[in-house]
Amino acid sequence: MPSLVECLTGTERISRIFSDESLLGAMLDFEAALAQAAAATGLIPQEAAAVIRRAAAPARFDMAELTRQALRAGTPVIPLVNMLTAETHALDESAARFVHWGATSQDVADTALVLKLGECRQVLESDHQRLLDALRKLSETHASTVMLGRTLLQPAPPVTFGLKAAGWHASLRRGWRRCAACFDEAACLEFGGASGTLAALGGNGLAAGERLARALGLKLPGAPWHAHRDRLAALMAAVAIYVGSLGKMALDIALLMQFEVGEAAEPGGEGRGGSSTMPHKRNPTACMLALAAAKRTPGLVSDFLAGMVQEQERAVGGWQNDWNLVHQLMQAAGVALESMREVAEGLVVDPGRMRANIQATGGSIFAERARFELADENYLGSAEEFRRRLLAEED
Amino acid sequence: MPSLVECLTGTERISRIFSDESLLGAMLDFEAALAQAAAATGLIPQEAAAVIRRAAAPARFDMAELTRQALRAGTPVIPLVNMLTAETHALDESAARFVHWGATSQDVADTALVLKLGECRQVLESDHQRLLDALRKLSETHASTVMLGRTLLQPAPPVTFGLKAAGWHASLRRGWRRCAACFDEAACLEFGGASGTLAALGGNGLAAGERLARALGLKLPGAPWHAHRDRLAALMAAVAIYVGSLGKMALDIALLMQFEVGEAAEPGGEGRGGSSTMPHKRNPTACMLALAAAKRTPGLVSDFLAGMVQEQERAVGGWQNDWNLVHQLMQAAGVALESMREVAEGLVVDPGRMRANIQATGGSIFAERARFELADENYLGSAEEFRRRLLAEED
Amino acid sequence: MPSLVECLTGTERISRIFSDESLLGAMLDFEAALAQAAAATGLIPQEAAAVIRRAAAPARFDMAELTRQALRAGTPVIPLVNMLTAETHALDESAARFVHWGATSQDVADTALVLKLGECRQVLESDHQRLLDALRKLSETHASTVMLGRTLLQPAPPVTFGLKAAGWHASLRRGWRRCAACFDEAACLEFGGASGTLAALGGNGLAAGERLARALGLKLPGAPWHAHRDRLAALMAAVAIYVGSLGKMALDIALLMQFEVGEAAEPGGEGRGGSSTMPHKRNPTACMLALAAAKRTPGLVSDFLAGMVQEQERAVGGWQNDWNLVHQLMQAAGVALESMREVAEGLVVDPGRMRANIQATGGSIFAERARFELADENYLGSAEEFRRRLLAEED
Amino acid sequence: MPSLVECLTGTERISRIFSDESLLGAMLDFEAALAQAAAATGLIPQEAAAVIRRAAAPARFDMAELTRQALRAGTPVIPLVNMLTAETHALDESAARFVHWGATSQDVADTALVLKLGECRQVLESDHQRLLDALRKLSETHASTVMLGRTLLQPAPPVTFGLKAAGWHASLRRGWRRCAACFDEAACLEFGGASGTLAALGGNGLAAGERLARALGLKLPGAPWHAHRDRLAALMAAVAIYVGSLGKMALDIALLMQFEVGEAAEPGGEGRGGSSTMPHKRNPTACMLALAAAKRTPGLVSDFLAGMVQEQERAVGGWQNDWNLVHQLMQAAGVALESMREVAEGLVVDPGRMRANIQATGGSIFAERARFELADENYLGSAEEFRRRLLAEED
Repeated sequence: MPSLVECLTGTERISRIFSDESLLGAMLDFEAALAQAAAATGLIPQEAAAVIRRAAAPARFDMAELTRQALRAGTPVIPLVNMLTAETHALDESAARFVHWGATSQDVADTALVLKLGECRQVLESDHQRLLDALRKLSETHASTVMLGRTLLQPAPPVTFGLKAAGWHASLRRGWRRCAACFDEAACLEFGGASGTLAALGGNGLAAGERLARALGLKLPGAPWHAHRDRLAALMAAVAIYVGSLGKMALDIALLMQFEVGEAAEPGGEGRGGSSTMPHKRNPTACMLALAAAKRTPGLVSDFLAGMVQEQERAVGGWQNDWNLVHQLMQAAGVALESMREVAEGLVVDPGRMRANIQATGGSIFAERARFELADENYLGSAEEFRRRLLAEED
Repeated sequence: MPSLVECLTGTERISRIFSDESLLGAMLDFEAALAQAAAATGLIPQEAAAVIRRAAAPARFDMAELTRQALRAGTPVIPLVNMLTAETHALDESAARFVHWGATSQDVADTALVLKLGECRQVLESDHQRLLDALRKLSETHASTVMLGRTLLQPAPPVTFGLKAAGWHASLRRGWRRCAACFDEAACLEFGGASGTLAALGGNGLAAGERLARALGLKLPGAPWHAHRDRLAALMAAVAIYVGSLGKMALDIALLMQFEVGEAAEPGGEGRGGSSTMPHKRNPTACMLALAAAKRTPGLVSDFLAGMVQEQERAVGGWQNDWNLVHQLMQAAGVALESMREVAEGLVVDPGRMRANIQATGGSIFAERARFELADENYLGSAEEFRRRLLAEED
Repeated sequence: MPSLVECLTGTERISRIFSDESLLGAMLDFEAALAQAAAATGLIPQEAAAVIRRAAAPARFDMAELTRQALRAGTPVIPLVNMLTAETHALDESAARFVHWGATSQDVADTALVLKLGECRQVLESDHQRLLDALRKLSETHASTVMLGRTLLQPAPPVTFGLKAAGWHASLRRGWRRCAACFDEAACLEFGGASGTLAALGGNGLAAGERLARALGLKLPGAPWHAHRDRLAALMAAVAIYVGSLGKMALDIALLMQFEVGEAAEPGGEGRGGSSTMPHKRNPTACMLALAAAKRTPGLVSDFLAGMVQEQERAVGGWQNDWNLVHQLMQAAGVALESMREVAEGLVVDPGRMRANIQATGGSIFAERARFELADENYLGSAEEFRRRLLAEED
Repeated sequence: MPSLVECLTGTERISRIFSDESLLGAMLDFEAALAQAAAATGLIPQEAAAVIRRAAAPARFDMAELTRQALRAGTPVIPLVNMLTAETHALDESAARFVHWGATSQDVADTALVLKLGECRQVLESDHQRLLDALRKLSETHASTVMLGRTLLQPAPPVTFGLKAAGWHASLRRGWRRCAACFDEAACLEFGGASGTLAALGGNGLAAGERLARALGLKLPGAPWHAHRDRLAALMAAVAIYVGSLGKMALDIALLMQFEVGEAAEPGGEGRGGSSTMPHKRNPTACMLALAAAKRTPGLVSDFLAGMVQEQERAVGGWQNDWNLVHQLMQAAGVALESMREVAEGLVVDPGRMRANIQATGGSIFAERARFELADENYLGSAEEFRRRLLAEED
C-alpha cells in the first residue's frame, strides 16, 4: 500500500514490489547468491555459503534500524552487510568473514533495483496487453462511428472514433515495444567490487559473475556499469514516453467527457468519479490520475538524465537518487496504466452525440472539401485505411 | 522513518510530518475546525460541531482502507469524509449531515498540505540557523587562511577560506530569506467549496473562512486559490534554489576532500563515511547526500511549474501530484540541510595543505598580477573586504 | 527578428535585446566603463580610458569571427578582448595594455547579461501593466456575468466571469511583484577578476567597482557572485511562475473558445487565428502561443537550477548555458505576455451563451445547494466579495 | 553561424542545417514534392505542379516578413503558403489554386523538421565514428596503463586507463545504437491534411502519400502522426542520453586535468583553453562545453515529454515548441560531440603521474585486497577482460 502522501501517485501492486520487505529481500537474495557463486567458483567454502544463505532471511533484520543507519552511511548496504555479518556470525563464527565477498555496496543496490524492475515489467505488461486488446476492440466496434476531428480545440473535418482509438493503440504498442527493449537491455547484473574490476576475486571475477548472473536470472554485461547509467536512463525515458502516450489518450477522453461535448465517458466503477460535494457528478477520475502521472514523469526523467554525468568509478550524488526516481516512475506508470486500462475496458461511447455535434457545426467543417471541390461521399478520406494500418502493426 | 526505497532521500523528521497519521490528523483538524467555524457563524448547531470534533480522532480511521479508496476516488478526502460521517453518525445521528459543511475535497487536501509546510519550515529553519552560525564561525576563524582559488577546476589566484565560507553563508542567507517570504506567502487557508465561491454557505462564507483560518493559524487570502498555484510554486522554487546553494557548498567541499587536494574533510561522525569494502576510507558522505538532493530538486520544480496550467475552477491532473512533489522537495531540503549543517559544524580544514598546494603551482597563479605589475603585498585584493561585506548582510 | 526556427518562440522586441549587436554593445559598454572607472580610481591613465572607449565601438568588430572564436575559447570574451586590444592598439599603441584591466571573462559575460535583463524588464513590464488594466476592466464589466464553474472539466456551481478575470489578475499581479523583486535583486554588477578577489586592482577593487556599477546603472553587491547564481535562479523561477499563470489564463480561454462551449473568443486581429486549410476558422492562436511558452519554461528553470551546483571559484559547465537559458526564458515570457495582453484587450465574451450553458445542465449543478437546503437567492455565495478582494490587492 | 547569444551552445554545422534558408528550403521542398505527387496521382495538373516547383525557390521569399507573420499566424506555414500561392500566381494564374493541395500547416512543419533531422544525423554520426575510433585507440594504447580508481572522488583500487576509455567507448556505442534506431523510426513523412484523414484527397491519400514520402526520402508511416509525438520523443531522449554519456566522459577528464591530479589533458588546439587573465593556463575548455551541453539537455527532454499530452487531432501548444526544442537539442549534441571528439583524438595521458598518484596513497587502496588475503599479482582483477569485452561489443 502506498503511504497516504502518495495515495494518488502509487498503486498497491507497484508498492508491494518496492516495499521494505521486498527491497530487503532482493538485497539479501544478492548476498546469498553471491555466496553461492563464490563457493561454486572455489573462492569461499561451501559451508560458509550455506550459512550465509540461512542468515540472509529478511525476518532477521531490523528495518527501522537499517533505514536509520542507511542515511548515515550514505547507502543501505553498509548496515545491511554489518547486520548480515552479525547474523552469520551468530550461526557460525567462521562463515562471517565470507559475507559480501568481493562485492561493493553499489553492486547490491543496483542489482536489487534491476531485480525489482523485472517485477514491475510483469505488472505493467499484463495491464498493457489488456489495454491494447480493449483499444483494438473499441477501434473495430467504432470503425465507422463518425465524429468531429478537433484541431486546436476547434472543430475540424470528421474522423472516426475507430481511427482515434487505433491511434492510441499504435502509439502505445510502439511505446511498449521500446519499453520492452529497454527492460531487456537493463536486465544486467551489476557486480564490480570496489573499483569495478572485481580485484578482490583475483582472476575469478568473470566466472563468479556468470554464476551470480545466472542465479539471479540476469544477463552478465560486458563489464560492470555502476558509473554508466545509460541503460537505466533509456528505460526511464521509454517508460516516460509510454506514460506520455497514456496521458494523450487520457486528455482526449477527458475532453470528450466535457458536459458540453458528451461524446464519451469513462466507466463509473466502484468508488470512482464522485465529488465530495456533488455526488451525482461523473468525473474523469481515472483520466485525471493518468494525466497527473504524465505531468510527474518529465521531471523524473530530467533528474535521471542530469545524474548520468558521474565522477570516475563511482559518483558522488549522481546515482544515490536512483531508487527514488525509478520507484516514482514505476508508480507513475503503474497508476496511469491501471487507470487507462480500466477506462479502455469500460469506455462508454455516444455515437448519437457525436453525430449531433457534427451537425451543430452547420457544415463549416467541410469548407476544406469545398475548397477542393469534392463531393460528399468519401468525406472521411483515408481514415479507414489509416485505421487498419495502425492496427495491423504496419506502423 | 522513510521507507527503505527512500532511505537516502528522506529524513526522519520530515517523514514524521508527512506520515500517514500526521497527514490524516491535519485533514481531520481541518474538518473539526470547519465544524467549529460553521457553528460559530451560525451555520450548523454547536452540538453537531462538538460531535464532529470528537469523531475526528485519527485513531478511529482505517488507514489502509482510506488509502485504497483514495486512488479509486481520485482524492483521499472523499473516503475520509465518508468515514468521518459514519463515525459522527455512530456518535450522534443528527450531527452526521453537518460534516464537511460547504467545503470541497481540495479545500481539505490543500489546507492540510499548507499546515504540513508550516511544520517543515520549523524543522528546516532550525537547521538553517545552526548552519549559518557554523559558517560564520568558519569564516571568522579562517579570515586569513589563504588557499588556491580554482576556476574551471584549475589553479587561480589565491582566496581565503574565510571568503569561501562567507560566500556560502551569504547565498544561503539570501536563499532562506526567499524561502521565509514564500513560506509566509503560502501560509493561506484554502476554503472555497465546489466552485470556489463558498456558495453553500450562503452569504456567510467570508465570516466562516476568517474563523477557520484563525483556528488553523493561517491567513485568509483574497479568495480561494485552488486553481492558482503560484504561491506554492514560488515556495517550491525558493526551496529548490536554497538546495542548489547547499549543493554548491557540498561540491566545493567534496572537491577539497579529494585525496590529491586534501584541504578539508567533513566530520566522520557516527556511521558516516565508510565503504563496505574499504573501511578506512573517509568518504564525503554528507556532501554526497546534499549533492544527490540538489540533483533531484530541479525535476520536482519543473513538474510543479508544468502543473500550474490548470483548467478553470479545478484542474484535472495539474494539482493531484502536489502532495507528492511538495513532500519530495521537503525531504530533499531536509536531507541536504541536515547533512550540510553537520558538515559545517564539524568541518576539518587543513591550512598547511592549502599553503602547500599553492606552493606546488610554482607561482604560475600569480601571472595575472605580473601582467598588472603588482607587488606581492596585498595579493589577496579585496578578499577581506568582500568577506566582511558578505557576513555583514550588506549582500 | 527571431530566426525562423524560433519564429513561434520569440518576439521581435526581445530578439532585439539579445541581437548580436546589442549583446556585443553591452560587453563593450562594460569594457569602456571599466576603463573609465579604472582611470577615475587612478589605476590606468585617463587618456588610455578615452582611447579604449573610442575603440569599443561595435561597428569595428567582426561578428562572425567573434562567434567562431568564442566556441573555441569557451567564451566570447577572450576573442572580444583580443579584438578590442587590437583596435585600441591601432588607435594608440600605449593604451592597448590597459584594456580589460583587472577583469575576467565572466565579469563581462555576466554583467552584459544583467544589463540585457534590465531591458527585458522594461518590455515585459509595459505589457504586464496593459494586461492588468485589461483584466481589471473585464472583471468590472462582467462582475455579474454568471457562468458555469467547471471542475475537472465538468459543470460545477456557477461563478461570474468577473471573478474568473479577477483570479487571473491577482495571480499575475502577485507574479509580477515577485518578478520585480527578483529583477531588482539580480541587477548587480559582476566584477571580481580571476578569482573573485579583484587581486589585480591591488586594494582599489571596491572603489573601482563602485564607480563601474554606478556607470552601468547597477548595484554593487557584497561581493562578486559569479559562482553563486541564486539571484539569477530566483529571477528565472519568478518569470517562469508568471508564465505559468499566463498559461493557466490561456488554457481557460482556449477551453471557453471550444465550439461546443462558445463562451469567449480571443480577438481575431491581423494575421491571427487562421488555418491553412480552413480559412473561416477562429483558432485560439494567441492562447496557443502562451500555452506553448508555459510548456517550454519548466525545463529552462530545471536546467538553470541544475547548473547552480558550481565548482569553487568558477564552474566548468554550470554557467556557460546561462545566456542561452535566460534568453530562451525571456523570449517565452515575451511571447506569452504579448499574446495574452492582446487577448485580454480584445476578448469577446458571450454572456448569453454562458447562461445557455448553465441552463443546459438542467439544474444538476445546484445539487450541492440542495444538499445544504439553501434558497436560490445568493447562489453565487461570496463570488462578488472574492472578486473585489482580488482586485483590491488584498490578496 | 549561431547567433552570439548562442555562441557556446551551438556549432556552425548544426546552425547551417537550421538556418532560415535551410528551413525555408525544406518547407518549399515539401510543397514542391507535394505538387508533384499530387500531379502523379492525378489530383492536380502536371503543369501546375511544374509551376509550383518553380515558384518554390527560397530566393523569392521575404524571410523577415515570413517570420513576422509566422508569430501572428501561430505557424510559419500560413504565410509561407500565402507567399507561395502569390509567387505561383505570378507565374501562372491557373496554377495558384493547386498550391499546398490537401495538406495542412503541421504537415509542412513536421516534415521539414524530420528532413532536418536526417541532416543532423549525418553530422553527428561522422563525429561519433571518429570519436569511437579515437577511444578504441586510447584504450588499446593504455591497456596496461595503471591508474587509481576513484569512487566518491576518493582513491580506490587501481584500474587501467584502457578500461576507463573502453567504458566511455561502450556507453557511447550503445548510446549511438539507440540514437540510430530512433533516427530511423522518426524518419517518417507527416501528411494528414486538416484532421489527419487526407479527406481533401478523396480516396487517393495513400497513393499520394507514398509518392511524396519516396520523393522526400522518408518512410510512409501507418498513419499521420501529428498528434502522436512518441517517435520524436524517443529520439530526443536517445540523443540526450548520448549527450549524458559524453558529459560523463568530459567530467572524468576535467577531473583528471586538475592541477593536483594531472593525469590527463585535453589537447590545446587553436584558440582553446585560454583565460582572459591567465594566458598560460590550460583549461578543460572542450570538456566544459560538453558538460554545459549535458546540463542543458535534461530540461529540453522534459519539456518535450510534457508536450506529448496533446489535444485530439492537433494540439494547442503541445507541439509548437518542437522546432525550438529539437534545434536546441541537436545543437547540444553537436557541441558536445565535436568537443569530445577533439578531446579523444588529442588527449594527453600521463602514465607517470598516474603511477605517482597511486604511490602517494601509501598502499591504503589495497586494504580491500588485504581483507581478502590476496597476493599482489593480479591486483587488477578482471580489468583487462572487462576492457576487451567492452571493445568487442559483447556489451
